[in-house]
Amino acid sequence: MKKDVVMVILAAGEGKRFRPFVTDKNLFPFLDKTMFDFAIPKEFPPQITSCVIVTSSGNREYFEHVTLPVPHRVVVQEKPTGMAGAVVAASHEIAGRSIVIVIADDIADPGLLTTMLKAARPDVMGVLTAWKSKSYFPGGYIVFREDRPIGIREKPGAGKTPSDYVYFGGQYIENADLLLSAIASSDSKSDDIYEQALSSLMAEHRFTLIPHEGRFVSLKYPWHILDVMSYVLAHGLQPGRGKHVDIKNNVSLEGPVYIGNNVRIFENTKIVGPVYIGDNTVIGNNNIIRDSYIGANCVTGFNTDITRSYVGDQCWLHANYIGDSVLEGNVSMGSGAILANLRLDEGDIYSMVGDTRHNTQRTKLGAMIARDVRIGGNASIMPGVKIGTNSFIGSGVVLDADIPADSFCVASRGYTVTTNTKKIGADRHKYKAKL
Amino acid sequence: MKKDVVMVILAAGEGKRFRPFVTDKNLFPFLDKTMFDFAIPKEFPPQITSCVIVTSSGNREYFEHVTLPVPHRVVVQEKPTGMAGAVVAASHEIAGRSIVIVIADDIADPGLLTTMLKAARPDVMGVLTAWKSKSYFPGGYIVFREDRPIGIREKPGAGKTPSDYVYFGGQYIENADLLLSAIASSDSKSDDIYEQALSSLMAEHRFTLIPHEGRFVSLKYPWHILDVMSYVLAHGLQPGRGKHVDIKNNVSLEGPVYIGNNVRIFENTKIVGPVYIGDNTVIGNNNIIRDSYIGANCVTGFNTDITRSYVGDQCWLHANYIGDSVLEGNVSMGSGAILANLRLDEGDIYSMVGDTRHNTQRTKLGAMIARDVRIGGNASIMPGVKIGTNSFIGSGVVLDADIPADSFCVASRGYTVTTNTKKIGADRHKYKAKL
Amino acid sequence: MKKDVVMVILAAGEGKRFRPFVTDKNLFPFLDKTMFDFAIPKEFPPQITSCVIVTSSGNREYFEHVTLPVPHRVVVQEKPTGMAGAVVAASHEIAGRSIVIVIADDIADPGLLTTMLKAARPDVMGVLTAWKSKSYFPGGYIVFREDRPIGIREKPGAGKTPSDYVYFGGQYIENADLLLSAIASSDSKSDDIYEQALSSLMAEHRFTLIPHEGRFVSLKYPWHILDVMSYVLAHGLQPGRGKHVDIKNNVSLEGPVYIGNNVRIFENTKIVGPVYIGDNTVIGNNNIIRDSYIGANCVTGFNTDITRSYVGDQCWLHANYIGDSVLEGNVSMGSGAILANLRLDEGDIYSMVGDTRHNTQRTKLGAMIARDVRIGGNASIMPGVKIGTNSFIGSGVVLDADIPADSFCVASRGYTVTTNTKKIGADRHKYKAKL
Repeated sequence: MKKDVVMVILAAGEGKRFRPFVTDKNLFPFLDKTMFDFAIPKEFPPQITSCVIVTSSGNREYFEHVTLPVPHRVVVQEKPTGMAGAVVAASHEIAGRSIVIVIADDIADPGLLTTMLKAARPDVMGVLTAWKSKSYFPGGYIVFREDRPIGIREKPGAGKTPSDYVYFGGQYIENADLLLSAIASSDSKSDDIYEQALSSLMAEHRFTLIPHEGRFVSLKYPWHILDVMSYVLAHGLQPGRGKHVDIKNNVSLEGPVYIGNNVRIFENTKIVGPVYIGDNTVIGNNNIIRDSYIGANCVTGFNTDITRSYVGDQCWLHANYIGDSVLEGNVSMGSGAILANLRLDEGDIYSMVGDTRHNTQRTKLGAMIARDVRIGGNASIMPGVKIGTNSFIGSGVVLDADIPADSFCVASRGYTVTTNTKKIGADRHKYKAKL
Repeated sequence: MKKDVVMVILAAGEGKRFRPFVTDKNLFPFLDKTMFDFAIPKEFPPQITSCVIVTSSGNREYFEHVTLPVPHRVVVQEKPTGMAGAVVAASHEIAGRSIVIVIADDIADPGLLTTMLKAARPDVMGVLTAWKSKSYFPGGYIVFREDRPIGIREKPGAGKTPSDYVYFGGQYIENADLLLSAIASSDSKSDDIYEQALSSLMAEHRFTLIPHEGRFVSLKYPWHILDVMSYVLAHGLQPGRGKHVDIKNNVSLEGPVYIGNNVRIFENTKIVGPVYIGDNTVIGNNNIIRDSYIGANCVTGFNTDITRSYVGDQCWLHANYIGDSVLEGNVSMGSGAILANLRLDEGDIYSMVGDTRHNTQRTKLGAMIARDVRIGGNASIMPGVKIGTNSFIGSGVVLDADIPADSFCVASRGYTVTTNTKKIGADRHKYKAKL
Repeated sequence: MKKDVVMVILAAGEGKRFRPFVTDKNLFPFLDKTMFDFAIPKEFPPQITSCVIVTSSGNREYFEHVTLPVPHRVVVQEKPTGMAGAVVAASHEIAGRSIVIVIADDIADPGLLTTMLKAARPDVMGVLTAWKSKSYFPGGYIVFREDRPIGIREKPGAGKTPSDYVYFGGQYIENADLLLSAIASSDSKSDDIYEQALSSLMAEHRFTLIPHEGRFVSLKYPWHILDVMSYVLAHGLQPGRGKHVDIKNNVSLEGPVYIGNNVRIFENTKIVGPVYIGDNTVIGNNNIIRDSYIGANCVTGFNTDITRSYVGDQCWLHANYIGDSVLEGNVSMGSGAILANLRLDEGDIYSMVGDTRHNTQRTKLGAMIARDVRIGGNASIMPGVKIGTNSFIGSGVVLDADIPADSFCVASRGYTVTTNTKKIGADRHKYKAKL
C-alpha cells in the first residue's frame, strides 16, 4: 500500500455555469456549513498525509484557515483554465508524489476514498471512479479493452457510447509526474486537456475502475443547489433545537427538523422535515414548510408555502409559494408572489446556460434567485427562470425569461381607465356570510 | 285507472348548450351516481310496467345495462332532432299504448309521477305539469279556456303571456297514436314540433294540468351543474365516512359531510356541509370547503377555498379560490389562481351560448372548465367564463372571454426591463417582525 | 388668571388635501366616535366657560347637537378661506373676549390646554405651542429675540430656519379684538393671513411659547388617518367584548382587543391588539389582524391579513393583504387582491396631493381607498395610491397611479390564444402528494 499520498483538492471553479448566484459555489452555505465542508470528508484514509487546495486568489485566505485532518497548503490557479490547469498549478506540491484528486464541487460517499486507495495496488498506475448510466448523459465515457479501462471518450453522443460507465470525480494517480508530463504534451485547445492526458496515461499503464453505486451529488448548475440541499438534509441534518426557541400554539412538527437559536414559529404552521431553520428566523402564522433549508434572520410571514426549496439568510417572504426554488439570500417577495415549479404540460423544465437552452432533467423546478433581489406582490416567476443579483421585479409581472443582474423589471401599464357608469348602493349586504 | 303504461325516457340530448363540458350530461357524475340516476326515480308507480329509453347511439350500451324497476328497452335516435324526433324513434315501442314521457335532464319531486297518473282519469287524454312563474321566462306558456289547458304558446314575450304557467318536463298521454299522428302532420320547421303537436291534441281533447310547487332542477346549460349539485347535496347525500380515512389535528367538520375511502384531510381545514369528498382525495392544510362536491383522486393542496362548486375527479389545486364554479375533471390550477364569482357591479352574470350572450340569472357564478385543463399560477378567470377541453391558461392571465377546446392562452409579455439604479443593502432588518 | 375664556374650535376645513375620502374629516369615524370627539377634550380647564364652533354649512346641524363641557354656539364659515376667515366668522362671538383657538384636525395631549392657560399671565398677550423639529419640516418656524417669540416665518426652507421650533395647533389670545384687527389689516393674498396677523401681534406684544414634547397627531392628508388610528388605538381603546359574540375554536387574541356586538370570529384566526372590531362584523377563518381598526358590518373572509390599517364599515374582503392602508367604507376586494405597502427599494413613499408629488415620510404605506369601491381578484394596488369614490378596479390590474372618483379601470386584454399542441393524459398522478 502506497504511503504518504497527497490529496489535491480542486476548488478553483469559475462558476460561469453557476450564475446567477454570486456566492462562490465552494463556500455556498448549507445547514451551518459550506459546500466545501460537505464535499471533503471529516476523516481521511491513513495513506493521505498531506493536502493541497487549488483555488482562486479570492478564496486563498479562506482556504488557508480551513481545518482538515492533515496539514494543507493552498496554491492559487490564476486563470480558471480547468482541471489540467489546476493540477499544473499544484505541480510544486505534487512532483514525484502519489496523489488523490478530489473535486470540491462533488459530494460522494465518504467511503469512496478508502475504496479507491485499497484498489491502488503496486501494479496499478491509477484508479478511476465511474457511475453506470441508464440513458445517455453528456459526460466522459470509459473505453474498455477486455474489462480494463484504457481511455475516456468525451461526449460521444447517444448510441455511440463505448460503454455504460461515465467517469466522474476524483482519481488516484501513482506518479503525478506522468500526469503532469501528459498534460504538458497535450495539444488540445479545448477544455478537455485533463481527460486527454488521463486517456493517454490509461492507454500505456494499468488503471482500475471502481463503479460507484447510485448517483453522486455535484454542484455545477444553479439548480444543483437543490440536489445538494436534499443530500445534506438527508445525510447531514442533526434534528434538535437551539436556545430561546419560541413555538406558539398549534404548530405541527413532523420528521427531522433543526430549529436554530431564537427562532420563533407562529400559530397553525406545519413543518415537515427534513427541514433546517437558521438562527433568529421567524416562521409566520399558517405556513407550510417541507423538505427545505431556511437560513438565518429570515421572516417567512403569514401564509407562506415553502416546498423543497433553499431559502438563504435574510429573506423576507409574505404569503408566497416557493416551490423547488433557490433564494440565495436577502431576497424579499411581496404578498401573493409565486415561484411556479411545474409547466402546464408537466414536461421537463429548461433553463438557459449562457446562450444554450439546457434541459434540467427536472419536471419540478422553480426560480433561481441571486442575492439582493426584490419581487413585488402577485408577481409570478415561471419555472426555471433565473434572476440576477440586485434586481427588482415589479408587482404583477409574469416573468418568463432570465433577468440579468442589476435589472429593473416592471409590468407594462396594462390597464385602461374610463368613466364608471354603475352605482354601488351603500347597503350591499344582500349576501349573507357563511363561514 | 289505466294499466300497463309505458315510460318513455328521453335521454338523447345533443348537448350543444352544455358546452364546454365533454361528458354526456345524462352520465355526468354526481356523488357516486350519474345525472340519470338522480333524474329517474328508484321506484315507479305500479301503472308503469315497461320502459323505453331513447338515446344516442354512443350511449346505447350504457343504457342497456342500467337497472330500472321495470323491464326496459333502448332505442336510438339517430339525429338529435329534439323531443318530437325522440318520440317518433320510440314509435314501435309505444304504438297503441298509454305513455308517460320523462326527460332525463330534469330532476323533479319523485311523487310527481304518481300525482300525474292519479290525474289520468278515464275522461282525460293527457296530463301536463307546469310551474307558476313570477317573472317572464322564455318557455312555453299554457293557454287556458275556463280553467282548462287548451294549448301551449312558445316564448310569447314579456307582457304577452297567456297565463303564469310554464309547461315543463314530462306528460301523460292516454293514446300515443294520437300524439304520433299529430307529430307526423306538423308542418313546423322549427324545434317546437313537439309542442305544436301537443297543442293540437289539447285543442281537441281534454287535458289536465298539475301545478308543480317550487322550481324543478334541469340540466340544460353548463351552470345548471351547480343547481343539480345543490339539489343532490341537499337530497341525496348520505353523511358518513369510508375506510382508511385519515383526519389530522384541528380539522373542523360541520353539517352533513361524506368522506370517501382513503381520503386524507390535513391540519387546520374546515369543511362545512353539505360536502361530498370522493375516494383517495387529499384535502390539504388550511383549506375551507363549503357546499361542494369534490370527486375522487383530487388534491386540493395548501390554502384552497372551495365554495358552492363542483370539482370533478383528478383535479389538482393549490391555494386557489373556486367559487360557484365547475371543474369537469383532471383540471389543475397553479398557486394563487382564482375563479372569480361576482361582478364588480354585483349584477347578473352573462355567459355565451353559441353566439348569444345569455343571462344566467345568477349574481354568483364562476368559471365552467372542461376536463383536461391546466391553469397557471395567479391567473384570474372572470365570472361566467367557459374553458374548453385540453386547454392551457398561462400564469397571470386575466381571462375575460370563453376559450375554445385545445387552446393555448398565455399572458402577453407585459413588462419592461431597464437598469436598476437602486442598491439594496445587505443589512435590511430595519423592520421588526410582529406576528 | 383670566376668567370666562371663549374656546374657538375651528372645524371648517375644506378637505381638498384629504381626498380621496368623501367623509368630512372632522366626522371621520374612529372606534365608536369621530375625529372631533378625540380632538376636543372631555373636560375643559375651568377658565373656559363658553365655546364657539366654526364649521361649514353642511356640518352646522351636526355640531349644534354635539355635547361639550360648556355651552356652545355654532357659526358657519361660508367659504373655506382658512384660519383667518374662520376667526373672522366667529367675530360676533369673540369680540372683546379672551380666546383659546383649537383646531379640530389635531389631537394633542389633553393637558396642553391647562398648561397654556396657566401661562396666560396678566403681562402676556398670547400663548403659543410649538414642537422641536429634528429635521426640516415645511411649517411655520418661531422667530426668537432673547428667548422671546416675536414672530413666525412660514416655510423658510431647509438651513434657513430661524429656530428649531415649529408652531402648531391652538393659541391663547388675551384680546381677540387685536387679532381681528390684525387680520383685517393684513394685505396678504396667500393662505397665511392668520400667521401674518399673529406675527404682527407678536412683534408688538409679549407672547409666551410652550414647547410640546413629542409629536401631536393631525389629520390633514389621507394617510394621517393611520396616525390618528394608531393614536386612538393606543389611547382611546377600551378592551372588551359586546353581546352575542361568537368566537370559534383556535382563535388567538393577544393584546388589547375590543369586539363589538354580534361579532363572529372563525377558526384559526389570530388577532394582535390594539384592534377594534365593530358590531356585526365577521372575521373569517385563518385571518391575521394586527394593530387595526375594523368597522361595523364587515366581512374579512377567508385568509385575510390586515396590518396597521383602517377598514371602515361594510367592507367585504377575501384572501387579501391590507397593509398600512385605509378603506373608507363599503369597499370590496376580490380573492388575492393586495394593497402593497413597501416599495421595492424600501424608500419613502410618495403620494400625489393635487398636482404635487408629496413625500409622505413613510416607508410603509399602502392604498387610500374612498367609499363605494370594488377591486377585482388578484389586483395589486401600489404603495401610496389613492382611489376615488364609486370606482371599479378590474381583476389583475397593477394600479400604479391615483384613480379619480367614478372610474372604471380594467386590465388591458393581455393575452394571446393559439392552438394547444400538447396533450394532457387522463392519468396524471405521477406526483405524490406530501402534505
